[in-house]
Amino acid sequence: MLNFNYSIPTNIYFGKGKMDNLPKLIKQYGSKILMTYGGGSIKSNGIYDKVVNLLKENNIEYFELGGVDPNPRVTTVREGIKICKENNVDFILALGGGSVIDCSKTIAAGCYYDGDPWDFFIGKARIKNALPLGTVVTLAATGSEMNGNAVISNVDTEEKLLTYGEALKPKFSILDPVNTFTVPKTQTAAGTADIMSHIFEQYFSTTEGAYIQDRMAEALLKTCIKYGPIAINDPENYEARANLMWVSTLALNNLLTYGKVTDWATHGMEHELSAIYDITHGVGLAILTPNWMTYVLDDSTLDKFVEYGVNVWDIDKTQEKITIARDAIKRTKEFFISLGIPSTLTEVGIGEDKLKEMAAKATKRGPQGNFKKLYEEDVLKIYLSSLK
Amino acid sequence: MLNFNYSIPTNIYFGKGKMDNLPKLIKQYGSKILMTYGGGSIKSNGIYDKVVNLLKENNIEYFELGGVDPNPRVTTVREGIKICKENNVDFILALGGGSVIDCSKTIAAGCYYDGDPWDFFIGKARIKNALPLGTVVTLAATGSEMNGNAVISNVDTEEKLLTYGEALKPKFSILDPVNTFTVPKTQTAAGTADIMSHIFEQYFSTTEGAYIQDRMAEALLKTCIKYGPIAINDPENYEARANLMWVSTLALNNLLTYGKVTDWATHGMEHELSAIYDITHGVGLAILTPNWMTYVLDDSTLDKFVEYGVNVWDIDKTQEKITIARDAIKRTKEFFISLGIPSTLTEVGIGEDKLKEMAAKATKRGPQGNFKKLYEEDVLKIYLSSLK
Repeated sequence: MLNFNYSIPTNIYFGKGKMDNLPKLIKQYGSKILMTYGGGSIKSNGIYDKVVNLLKENNIEYFELGGVDPNPRVTTVREGIKICKENNVDFILALGGGSVIDCSKTIAAGCYYDGDPWDFFIGKARIKNALPLGTVVTLAATGSEMNGNAVISNVDTEEKLLTYGEALKPKFSILDPVNTFTVPKTQTAAGTADIMSHIFEQYFSTTEGAYIQDRMAEALLKTCIKYGPIAINDPENYEARANLMWVSTLALNNLLTYGKVTDWATHGMEHELSAIYDITHGVGLAILTPNWMTYVLDDSTLDKFVEYGVNVWDIDKTQEKITIARDAIKRTKEFFISLGIPSTLTEVGIGEDKLKEMAAKATKRGPQGNFKKLYEEDVLKIYLSSLK
Repeated sequence: MLNFNYSIPTNIYFGKGKMDNLPKLIKQYGSKILMTYGGGSIKSNGIYDKVVNLLKENNIEYFELGGVDPNPRVTTVREGIKICKENNVDFILALGGGSVIDCSKTIAAGCYYDGDPWDFFIGKARIKNALPLGTVVTLAATGSEMNGNAVISNVDTEEKLLTYGEALKPKFSILDPVNTFTVPKTQTAAGTADIMSHIFEQYFSTTEGAYIQDRMAEALLKTCIKYGPIAINDPENYEARANLMWVSTLALNNLLTYGKVTDWATHGMEHELSAIYDITHGVGLAILTPNWMTYVLDDSTLDKFVEYGVNVWDIDKTQEKITIARDAIKRTKEFFISLGIPSTLTEVGIGEDKLKEMAAKATKRGPQGNFKKLYEEDVLKIYLSSLK
C-alpha cells in the first residue's frame, strides 16, 4: 500500500426529502448564486420548480445558466464566469449530473482567474481558489459531487480534458435517490457503466498489498451489477436508485484510490471518442472496457483478472486461471450488453477513419495507463478491436 | 437504506514517514499543546523522542499527560482539563491508541465546560465545543482517530460509558503503520477482535437494502481475517500492519453506519465487564461475540448469518441455511482462538458472582441492541453462556 493523504471534506445529505436543507446550506456560503443545469429534464420532472421555490421563499437571489451539454463545453464555462463576475455571484449551485457539476466547478475556479479557463486543462494554469459550490445530484454516474475533478470539452480543438483542484470539491451535495427516478433507461445503463469503469480504473493496478481497497472495489462493483438491471427495469425502485446513487459517489471520492497507483487508460481513450463524436461517455467506456481488458491480459496481469472473476463474478476458482480471466472479461461485456448498451464503435457511428488520429492524440502527453502502459499503437489496436 | 448526513472531516496522513508533517499540522491550530500518552511503550519504541524532537525543533510549547490507562479514567480526564485550563493550552495531541485518544477528546470537550466531564457520559451535558485535537495512532483497534466517539470509565461508579460530539472529531490523524510494529501479539490480537466487533455491530442490522454498506463491511472483515494472523506472526510486516491500520479507521468512521440502524449490544455488554474487571476491551468482545451470535440466531436473523457465512467465510452456499449460520459462528470463535485470545470469561478471571448485577446495569437505560433487542434476562443468558 502506498502513502496517502486523505481529505474528503464534502458533506453529503442523502435520502428522501433532503432537498429541504438547501436554503440553510446555501446561506452558509453566499446569498447571490448561479444555478446551473442541463437540457431541461429538471424542468419536466419538477426538480427545477422545487429548487426555485426554495430559493424564492428564502430570499436567495439567483442567476441561471441552463443548457449545459452532456459533454460540457468550455464556451459554456466562459459564459458562466461572465455571469458570475458581472453580478458578484458568491456561490454556485449545480443541479444535474457530472456534466453540470464539472461545468460549474470550472466556472467556480474561473471566477478566481484572469485568463481563459481552458488554461486549467492544458497545464497553463493551476487551480488555487474557487467559488464555493453545492450540488443537487440528478444522475448516478460520475461521482463529481464528492471530488475535485472536472472534465471539459473544447469543440474548437476537438479535445476533452481533465483538471483537478482541492478547491473544486463541493461544500455539500444533496443526494436524493427519488431525483433519479425519471432518468431514462439508456442513461441509467450508461451511468452504471461509468461507475463500473471508475472502479475498474482504480482496481486494476500494479500496487501490491492494497487488499482493503481491492475488496472495497469489489463490494462496489457487486452493487452496480446487482442494482443496474433493477433500476433499468423498475425505475422507481428506491433501494436500487439509492444503492446506485451512493456507489457512484463512493466509487470516485478517492476512497478506492488512496494507497494505490491507478490506471485511467480507458477514460483517456474514451475522452478522444466523445471529444470528436460527442457520444455518451458511459457508452464509450462500456464499448472500450472489455477490449481494453482483453488487450492487457497477459502473464503479468493474469492474477488480477482471476481475482476479479472469482470475487466479483463468483466464477469457480478451481478452473484454470486463464479460463477464469477470459470468462470474467466475457461476463463484463455481456453485462453491459444486458443493460442495453451498444458493444461496438460501429453501432455508435464511429468508423475506422479517425482512429489513428485519436490514438495519436490520446498519447500525445505520454502513454496511457499504469496497469499496463499503452502507447499509440496499443491504443489504436484497442480502438480497432472495438469496431465490431 | 435510511437517510443520512455524511461528514468525515478528519484529514488522514497515512504511511511511512508521515510524522514529519506533525509540526506543520499542529501550527494550523495552536502553539501551546497538551501531549497525552499511555503507559510508556512510546518511550521504549522511540515515538515519544521523535515527537518531542519535532516539537522542540519547531518551538512548539508542550505539556504532558502520561499514564493514561487502557480503560481511561474520568479522573485522568479531570487532570488533563486542569492542565489545559491553567496553561491556556490551545491544542491537544494524542499519542497512542483509542484509550489515549478518547481521554484526549474528553479533555478537549471539558475545556469548554464548567461542570464535571462525567456529565457528558450520563446525559447531564451535551458536547458543543472542544479544543482542536490531532492524533498519532500507535495501535490499530478503536478507530477513534476518525470519529466523534469517546468511551471513559468511572471507577467510583463502576461504569464505562460512551459520549459523542461532532466537535470531538480529530482535525488530523497520522497513521504510520511502522508505529505499530512493536505492538505485542496479545494487543494485536485484541485490536483485530475490536475492529471486527465494530464491523459486526454495524453489519448485523435490521435495515433492508443497505447492500453497498454490507458488501463494504464484508470487505473490511476479510481484511481483518487475512491480516490479523500475519501481523501477529510477523509483527514488522508492513502490508499487514498497513491493512490493519486502515481497516481499523474505516471500520468506525461512519462509512458502514450511514444508512443503517446499527446494533452495539456486544459493546454494551462488554463495557460492563471491563468497567468492573478492567479486562482488555477487545478480549471481552471476542469472548462475547460468538455467544451473542448464537443467542440471536433465529428464523428472523438466519438469512443475515447465511450472508455472513457465505460472503465472509466462503462457506459452501448449497448447504442448509442453519448449517451455514452455525458454521459461520463456529469459524468466528475459532478465528479468535487462533489469534490466541481467551474464549471464556472464566479464563479472564470473571465468575458468575457479578453477572446478574452487570446484566441489570447493561440494560438500566433500556434494552441493548437493535438487530435483536436484549433485555436484562437476555444479557444474563449471554454472560452465562460465555463463562465456559
